Amino acid sequence: MSGESEKSIVAIVVSKNTLDMAYPPIIAETAAAMGMEVHLFFTFWGLYLLKKGGAEKAKLPGLMRFFTGMMQKKMEKVGVKPLREMIREAKELGVKFHACQTTMEVLGIKREDLIEEVDDVMGAASFLEIAEKAKITLFI
Amino acid sequence: MSGESEKSIVAIVVSKNTLDMAYPPIIAETAAAMGMEVHLFFTFWGLYLLKKGGAEKAKLPGLMRFFTGMMQKKMEKVGVKPLREMIREAKELGVKFHACQTTMEVLGIKREDLIEEVDDVMGAASFLEIAEKAKITLFI
Amino acid sequence: MSGESEKSIVAIVVSKNTLDMAYPPIIAETAAAMGMEVHLFFTFWGLYLLKKGGAEKAKLPGLMRFFTGMMQKKMEKVGVKPLREMIREAKELGVKFHACQTTMEVLGIKREDLIEEVDDVMGAASFLEIAEKAKITLFI
Repeated sequence: MSGESEKSIVAIVVSKNTLDMAYPPIIAETAAAMGMEVHLFFTFWGLYLLKKGGAEKAKLPGLMRFFTGMMQKKMEKVGVKPLREMIREAKELGVKFHACQTTMEVLGIKREDLIEEVDDVMGAASFLEIAEKAKITLFI
Repeated sequence: MSGESEKSIVAIVVSKNTLDMAYPPIIAETAAAMGMEVHLFFTFWGLYLLKKGGAEKAKLPGLMRFFTGMMQKKMEKVGVKPLREMIREAKELGVKFHACQTTMEVLGIKREDLIEEVDDVMGAASFLEIAEKAKITLFI
Repeated sequence: MSGESEKSIVAIVVSKNTLDMAYPPIIAETAAAMGMEVHLFFTFWGLYLLKKGGAEKAKLPGLMRFFTGMMQKKMEKVGVKPLREMIREAKELGVKFHACQTTMEVLGIKREDLIEEVDDVMGAASFLEIAEKAKITLFI
């Protein structure tokens, strides 16, 4: 019986904030649109994506940072929306946004510095409880 | 009953094309040789590994790129085959090679630009359907 | 019946040795403290964390390496212990440390070069057997 009517859970750790690795929302949005229950845990550099203005500032890594604008134009052209907009859409589709508590303390980021899409601030233990029940677990 | 006679599924997202992160074929080949059903989804930079000539050009990241040749010699010495050859072997062992549709559009890569080992071009949704059934899911 | 009284298994591939990506012990320690069975497989750059003196030398990636000391002070301030100490604690909590055999051959690292916390040296196949039974699989 169990598992039949339940939603599949997807648990993703988002650890980077470079534009190339900031696209889990694409996977998250797709999974949510397919009816899965999606949880994103933003830790280390990834937390910057949840800071007000952070998603807008995401760049490609290293020397490729100078090609960020070009890449964004290419993405827009094929219908990939800007990161900030994707976060909004993912949220509307039910994706859960969790901010890592330890990272907030280390980086000195406060709750009011975060965008409104954030559901809660949690520790690794709480996220592991979710991941334990997940069908798909990814570290990005 | 179910799950007893079925093959375990391994679903790996390949997102980078630096030589160090281009070695999922080692895991993939090993898993396939163990009798598992292995799916690789090449997205973002990872897609370059599926372009004709792309695997041959893979370098170590950043400043370590200059030590790529040295690393390759060390690898060869202990029996790790060149990346292009490993892709061929993995394919023979039944590993499935999926190219990410959105990435192809963003990077302007066409089906005929890809190596013959590629099984198909698919979107994130199709890959998530595979990953949902997988025992092992990794994002590299 | 099965799965009820058994421990959940967590299988993590540690592939990098930069300070930011060297923190799987935080997840590992937390998971172990929650009663999970945790396995860490150190491969490629990640293996350097198991070399004597390697965890102490871990730096932030790229140009951020110059801010390593500052980050470490911030971490210490909020109670995140130095990496070497976390490895010791994780070990005491039962976390298993596996060193990748192929990586040792490629990098010319010998068993006696590794810290005492290492449980064993194994190939990808042995690790995949563990990961196949895991509830949570991550590639860091």
